[in-house]
Amino acid sequence: MDRLRESMAEAAQAVEEVIGDLLPEEAGGAETRVFEAMRYAILNGGKRFRPFLVLSASRLFNVAERCAFRAAAAVEMVHSYSLVHDDLPSMDDDDLRRGKPSCHVKFDEATAILAGDALLTLAFEVLAGDATHSDPAVRCELVLGLGGACGGQGMVGGQMIDLISEHQALDIGTISRMERLKTGELIAFSCEAGAILGKAPRPARHALRAYAHDLGLAFQIIDDLLDEEGSEADIGKSVGKDAAAGKATFVSILGPQQARVQAEMLADQAVQHLDLFEENADLLRQVAGFVVERRG
Amino acid sequence: MDRLRESMAEAAQAVEEVIGDLLPEEAGGAETRVFEAMRYAILNGGKRFRPFLVLSASRLFNVAERCAFRAAAAVEMVHSYSLVHDDLPSMDDDDLRRGKPSCHVKFDEATAILAGDALLTLAFEVLAGDATHSDPAVRCELVLGLGGACGGQGMVGGQMIDLISEHQALDIGTISRMERLKTGELIAFSCEAGAILGKAPRPARHALRAYAHDLGLAFQIIDDLLDEEGSEADIGKSVGKDAAAGKATFVSILGPQQARVQAEMLADQAVQHLDLFEENADLLRQVAGFVVERRG
Repeated sequence: MDRLRESMAEAAQAVEEVIGDLLPEEAGGAETRVFEAMRYAILNGGKRFRPFLVLSASRLFNVAERCAFRAAAAVEMVHSYSLVHDDLPSMDDDDLRRGKPSCHVKFDEATAILAGDALLTLAFEVLAGDATHSDPAVRCELVLGLGGACGGQGMVGGQMIDLISEHQALDIGTISRMERLKTGELIAFSCEAGAILGKAPRPARHALRAYAHDLGLAFQIIDDLLDEEGSEADIGKSVGKDAAAGKATFVSILGPQQARVQAEMLADQAVQHLDLFEENADLLRQVAGFVVERRG
Repeated sequence: MDRLRESMAEAAQAVEEVIGDLLPEEAGGAETRVFEAMRYAILNGGKRFRPFLVLSASRLFNVAERCAFRAAAAVEMVHSYSLVHDDLPSMDDDDLRRGKPSCHVKFDEATAILAGDALLTLAFEVLAGDATHSDPAVRCELVLGLGGACGGQGMVGGQMIDLISEHQALDIGTISRMERLKTGELIAFSCEAGAILGKAPRPARHALRAYAHDLGLAFQIIDDLLDEEGSEADIGKSVGKDAAAGKATFVSILGPQQARVQAEMLADQAVQHLDLFEENADLLRQVAGFVVERRG
């Protein structure tokens, strides 16, 4: 597991560099402020869990590193944009993100909205650019995959359900669906991106999606547990907010013990989808272990 | 001119139908609310000026109608998303849009932010989909063109400059640059999209961009004049806001008379870029006339 953490940390640093190169920097005028906000929102030493999935899945199909890194950067841009918008006062109203003031606190609301918009836009540009893959059909598939994962029928839809559902007694099925849309689809795309880049046959692609769906749910349950049990210092964002907001989560319904059992079961199940890749998927198997063992 | 207005109205209705078909409608859960907000924000009987440019430019290269309409719909989705976000309280704080409550007034801020995000995302999906063009290289070019027009170095950057510049004495060069980014780039892409879809040679593409840049600036100057002189009933949004906000505009610097002269000069200049298309570009020539004559 230490070995995994090490290669995750290495990958995170490499991804950070790629993202830094892709972000706009100098401008002719006052719009530099929104570039600064974009950099602030994404170049923050995050774990880069989704990019690591892109890179690990890409390795299964011998995808060129350069291509995998660009796709990884695009996914992280979307993840970062979603955090910037979710943290806004009219959304989750969160002042702290990864141990630092949220983007709208550091800058202002308008700048944060614009920075999120620009990060989302840039993600699609990165995927559609010919440096990401020589075959434009592959690039279109990436754009479509990312769009499906993060639009109204994906992440945005999940966030809408989440906002509406505050102070409502949700059943476990609704929570699962909300989490699948809100975080699961982007995690699934992260894995699928490797298969798209590698022009993998359909069964491999489906297997990766199935793995990622179980993994994503396990990831979310552990997130909920950390929100309930963790400290701000450990996880770098405000904690106990779900309970305070009266939000139904896996933990509030199942209780912490059963929730952990559920996450472990999902991680096991995730790993089983990887059988067809044999030992090539050992990295992704370890990731599943990491997801349920993480403390932040 | 009446003939032009007629064909613009017809095109607007057809575009509205295409957009309606592309928007998500039914959902399995509470995310339906964001779909409703998306529909509210875009299916509002707008003039569809940008889509008309896409369609008119596409005709120069005999682009299939189906393809042109999808690109036109994508451009309008981006335009609508930008209005939804610009109207937010932390941005321009505008309660009225096209004669109706703005999206965040009708729904709420969070829903409006999400609806904008989802419209932007959907625009890229529409362009990348194989119904837009059989050649994926063309689709990638569209995605890149739209991304460049609406990201940090385009529309978002322009809006950032605009927000920062309130109560500042801007010179005419800075205002021109801001307007080029904020509205000009998307108008330029609208025309260029026709050339991309038609795989037009580079000189034709450049000519269309040049036309659109002049046209876009003329369009903006008239917008400023309408803001100063028009009534809410005519133009369906709050008026006199620029002056109230102490915003420097073409009109505040040049004065209304000189501003109109400038707009007319730009429209003339725009038309001159169309020479290489000979009589095929008559429609675009008429559009330039429409832009300076419009009253709302």
